[in-house]
Amino acid sequence: MEIKIGQEKLAKALNHVSKVAAGSRATLPILNNVLIRVDENKVSLTTTNLDMAVVSFLPAAGCKNGVVTVPARLIAEFVSNLPRGEIVEITAEGEKVEIKAGGYTSSINGAPADDFPELPEIEEGKVVKFVIGVDEFKDGLAQVMVAVSNDTTRPALTGVYFNTFEDGLYLAATDGYRLAERKILKGAGAEVMAIVPAPSLRTVMGLLGDEATEIEILFDETQVRFRLGEVEVTSKLIDGSFPDYRQLIPKETEIKVGLPRDELTRVTKLAALFAKEVGGSVVCETTVENGAFSIASVANELGENKSEIETEVKSDGKVTLNSRFLLDALNVVGGKDVSFGFSNKLDPVVLRSDVTEDYVHIIMPLKS
Amino acid sequence: MEIKIGQEKLAKALNHVSKVAAGSRATLPILNNVLIRVDENKVSLTTTNLDMAVVSFLPAAGCKNGVVTVPARLIAEFVSNLPRGEIVEITAEGEKVEIKAGGYTSSINGAPADDFPELPEIEEGKVVKFVIGVDEFKDGLAQVMVAVSNDTTRPALTGVYFNTFEDGLYLAATDGYRLAERKILKGAGAEVMAIVPAPSLRTVMGLLGDEATEIEILFDETQVRFRLGEVEVTSKLIDGSFPDYRQLIPKETEIKVGLPRDELTRVTKLAALFAKEVGGSVVCETTVENGAFSIASVANELGENKSEIETEVKSDGKVTLNSRFLLDALNVVGGKDVSFGFSNKLDPVVLRSDVTEDYVHIIMPLKS
Repeated sequence: MEIKIGQEKLAKALNHVSKVAAGSRATLPILNNVLIRVDENKVSLTTTNLDMAVVSFLPAAGCKNGVVTVPARLIAEFVSNLPRGEIVEITAEGEKVEIKAGGYTSSINGAPADDFPELPEIEEGKVVKFVIGVDEFKDGLAQVMVAVSNDTTRPALTGVYFNTFEDGLYLAATDGYRLAERKILKGAGAEVMAIVPAPSLRTVMGLLGDEATEIEILFDETQVRFRLGEVEVTSKLIDGSFPDYRQLIPKETEIKVGLPRDELTRVTKLAALFAKEVGGSVVCETTVENGAFSIASVANELGENKSEIETEVKSDGKVTLNSRFLLDALNVVGGKDVSFGFSNKLDPVVLRSDVTEDYVHIIMPLKS
Repeated sequence: MEIKIGQEKLAKALNHVSKVAAGSRATLPILNNVLIRVDENKVSLTTTNLDMAVVSFLPAAGCKNGVVTVPARLIAEFVSNLPRGEIVEITAEGEKVEIKAGGYTSSINGAPADDFPELPEIEEGKVVKFVIGVDEFKDGLAQVMVAVSNDTTRPALTGVYFNTFEDGLYLAATDGYRLAERKILKGAGAEVMAIVPAPSLRTVMGLLGDEATEIEILFDETQVRFRLGEVEVTSKLIDGSFPDYRQLIPKETEIKVGLPRDELTRVTKLAALFAKEVGGSVVCETTVENGAFSIASVANELGENKSEIETEVKSDGKVTLNSRFLLDALNVVGGKDVSFGFSNKLDPVVLRSDVTEDYVHIIMPLKS
């Protein structure tokens, strides 16, 4: 095997794939390695952690076919420390891999490609496919990822639910305490119901923002592939059923106030400082008489805090929330103003922004 | 007690002192607090961790005398989250502290000032005093802090040694494996030999870079005070004797090569990647025949690596170093070119930069 590629291109491709290599925690040492394959002048670099695989493709005029695996982080760090502009030559004889660039030489001990696990394959003829602008996808994904659960005893909640409804493609996530939903595509033209694991999506997010302007998403029965320019992430889907969440989103709330997002964020932070001892619990209240929305922490050992924002209020009401969930929502909802809707102490709070109807974030109240 | 101060000034002063407040690890809970004192229209904010104290002074026209303590991080975060431009009013009645700013109110539970520990006092009539430009002090301190020891069984090495020699003021630090010395003042005009604890110096470094252009350093027998504009840090000195280090710095070395600092940094990083399994050990070598300085990692399970830099070489030599120590030194030595001097496998390596004679960094070789 022989490869000749410019330092910058190679460093970037290695950087894309090396993060998935499992590091020293790997139970299978080969998972620390990157599979380097040259096949008819196409170079592919592949890493996997068994749940997902990342492949980065490079054009490779004048390369020689072959395949080898080497420690992914070592070669990625090595190549990224070489001077820009150098041509990097990688040659493998058996498992001995030589890297040369200008006056720099090194010899890395690889491992046989036969030991590398089989990669998840998708039958591209039998898939459901969506194409989405990178910016819309990135923003929408960030808006729902915040609500993904970490609780591995309920695996279906540890991913993002890609689902079609009335020809729109939606992302949804919930941890049982809050729920976020974003419509990312109109006229989806196909149907899907699939839960994609959060770690795979974080890997995809780490690759966004590069050259490609569109992302292709391909689903088969058990897997999903994200194709982004010259990089592909293929992941297992989570085998489970996502809650029928649409019925949980209130159509209307009894009370609704419009609030400047930055001001609501500020007063929530102030109240949260005092709420550390009470699990982050803060009380939101509307008062017709004062024409104000207020947020207060419950008096405790540290002290107490109350702040008001003047706004149009049509009826009095009160609801207790986890301030962290409210801050998480305000951080991703977007827009200049938010609408804060609630009905009574037990019904969910509904947050929407002034810039789009396509995003909704609901938070379950705390008992007070 | 009553205080009225603009949000930005107060937030900054609280930020300066709150880092020293011990956080939840404090054995004495009062150490989490900031002592707020108003005394003849001077406001002082003080925190201490018993080893050092930080005081920030504020002018306070129209304030009322009094004293109270409140949780430092809570009030610092609270004030820093208030809108800029607001006037912050703090009033204390007993231990109940009210804070108001515009529409924001909060009530913090304080603690009696009597419980606050006595602060280290310096008799300013009986001190040795030096005045140094902030930039010189900051750069010099960073150049030696890297060599401070973490080993608490040898307390004298866990600080920086401020010492005068031939009317110059020097900073020195060593952990037994490397030693760094920087002359920071000519014509010191007084004598000192004092070891200042590294944590106190880190606190001082965190305060540098603000308005003040000069720092005053005052030593008495057991304490040091750093005065920087409206902030003072007072710290205990380390009670111990610093090694007679000047004799450890070789006057000359048998071999000396000039090397571009960024290139030497690059090749050291490359070698270090392969040296992880062998404790960071790398071999530096000069070869007259090749007209080159080379750095190589020892072959091990990962592989091996060798890089060369062409330079003028007068004799062959070889020395084994810890690559991390070499990288630390290169990171602080400054200048475009460095001189790398060594004699034989057991004598220390001497690094100097092309920009100043006032800094020297020596590294003890590893046995090879």
